[in-house]
Amino acid sequence: MDTATHKLDSAQAVHALDIATALVRQPDGSFLGSTSPAYGNMVGPFGGVTAATLLQSVITHPERLGEPVALTVNFAGALADGEFSIIAEPVRTNRSTQHWVLRLLQAGETAATATVVTATRRDTWSATDALFPQVPAAAELARTPPIERAAWTRQYDMRFVRGGPNPDGGWTPGADADTERDSISQLWIRDEPPRCLNFVSLAAICDAFYPRLFARRPKWVPIGTVSLTTYFHADSGMLSAVGSHALLGTARALSFSNGYFDQTAEVWSQEGRLLASSHQVVYYKE
Amino acid sequence: MDTATHKLDSAQAVHALDIATALVRQPDGSFLGSTSPAYGNMVGPFGGVTAATLLQSVITHPERLGEPVALTVNFAGALADGEFSIIAEPVRTNRSTQHWVLRLLQAGETAATATVVTATRRDTWSATDALFPQVPAAAELARTPPIERAAWTRQYDMRFVRGGPNPDGGWTPGADADTERDSISQLWIRDEPPRCLNFVSLAAICDAFYPRLFARRPKWVPIGTVSLTTYFHADSGMLSAVGSHALLGTARALSFSNGYFDQTAEVWSQEGRLLASSHQVVYYKE
Repeated sequence: MDTATHKLDSAQAVHALDIATALVRQPDGSFLGSTSPAYGNMVGPFGGVTAATLLQSVITHPERLGEPVALTVNFAGALADGEFSIIAEPVRTNRSTQHWVLRLLQAGETAATATVVTATRRDTWSATDALFPQVPAAAELARTPPIERAAWTRQYDMRFVRGGPNPDGGWTPGADADTERDSISQLWIRDEPPRCLNFVSLAAICDAFYPRLFARRPKWVPIGTVSLTTYFHADSGMLSAVGSHALLGTARALSFSNGYFDQTAEVWSQEGRLLASSHQVVYYKE
Repeated sequence: MDTATHKLDSAQAVHALDIATALVRQPDGSFLGSTSPAYGNMVGPFGGVTAATLLQSVITHPERLGEPVALTVNFAGALADGEFSIIAEPVRTNRSTQHWVLRLLQAGETAATATVVTATRRDTWSATDALFPQVPAAAELARTPPIERAAWTRQYDMRFVRGGPNPDGGWTPGADADTERDSISQLWIRDEPPRCLNFVSLAAICDAFYPRLFARRPKWVPIGTVSLTTYFHADSGMLSAVGSHALLGTARALSFSNGYFDQTAEVWSQEGRLLASSHQVVYYKE
């Protein structure tokens, strides 16, 4: 076996996402992590993996109770490539819920803050009011080529139903005026290579929607997410049952106003179960 | 002037919301506040006023830069009637954005955590993709009676277009099956007595939507918001321009799943400007 093949085998044995979100607990209780070139963005790492890594610190924390219900990440400053540390503190533990406050530090500065709510769920009356979009199956669509300048897009198999990027990394205006006005994208998405779904990978996928500004207005300007909130509507058993199948994601914006726009997303299993909904507010320069 | 009249005049001079959200800075930099019977809920205070009070601590903080863009509040434990303290820390200040971490303490325990992003906005290209609902004007609708068991509902003039409570505090199923299935409410809402809109009152109104579970399924069970996120799409000048006119609010749920449901809301000016969007995840017992 030559070196190149050996490297490939190792990469397949441990998924790149698990390398990117790996944390080492330190003697003081904090976690040490490192950015991963595989999930690099145009500047710094892909925010979805930063969010997933913050969630990872709670999931692997010895005091954690239950499973994630809500995750909010505030991106406070640019994260440089390299090491960072995470402090995750369970500030309140109730009978069935637990509240966490997190801070991600790099070079002595706060680069991100986060809060997480975990809970033990019980079987109750349940219903989904959101409607599962009627779209072609993932197998009927071609993979949308990754964007060369954003390494993280190579780590996902994305198949756009509508509102996707051109092969050259630009944007196709919607097929009709209504589509464009509503800033809607729909796509099938899964980790590439395939990886069994869990909370960490789902948290990253919830931020894998291209900025709505670029869908709405095909012009490149500097942008950056300032706050991201994800609600999990499934437990770990439901996520395991999804396996490595593609998920259906939808995203849209409500408002672009004086330097900040919002976007809201839904992530569904192919069987039509809503796994997560996610919201964010994003800075844009002009 | 008799005592009753004098009390009424005083109440009009300082709005009950300003009393409820008043904070006194302590020598250690923390803020001291107190719950207000006017905004009591069935158990403890109305969460919207707790959120507004947390935001108030940032707005009145001497180190605050810019205006609120994002607010997330995690309700960690029941707040008892009485005093509480808030610690608001600016953990990162950039050129145009500032990131805050907050904690609300009562009797030595964390009752809520919050994060706030403030920013100085600049004029940019702007657009609203959400559609302003076509509804009757507030003046054409009757005021919906408050719910007796929830004092805070008396502090708002609410006029439901659809999805509102009965005069007896119960719930009217939607006029058609689709309405009911989508858990949608639409209402005109303003402070009662009228009060000029600002970030504090808008933050409270963003949580003034009855729980979607009760709109969806007219059956009373214990519920409680665990996490609430609000994005502000307007600056203080736009809010001042709204004055004390009624706002149009819409709310819906996406998913009710094993003890937790989400709800998402939009708050519009009567001129059709989207002022805020808000999302929350709520515990329900069965």
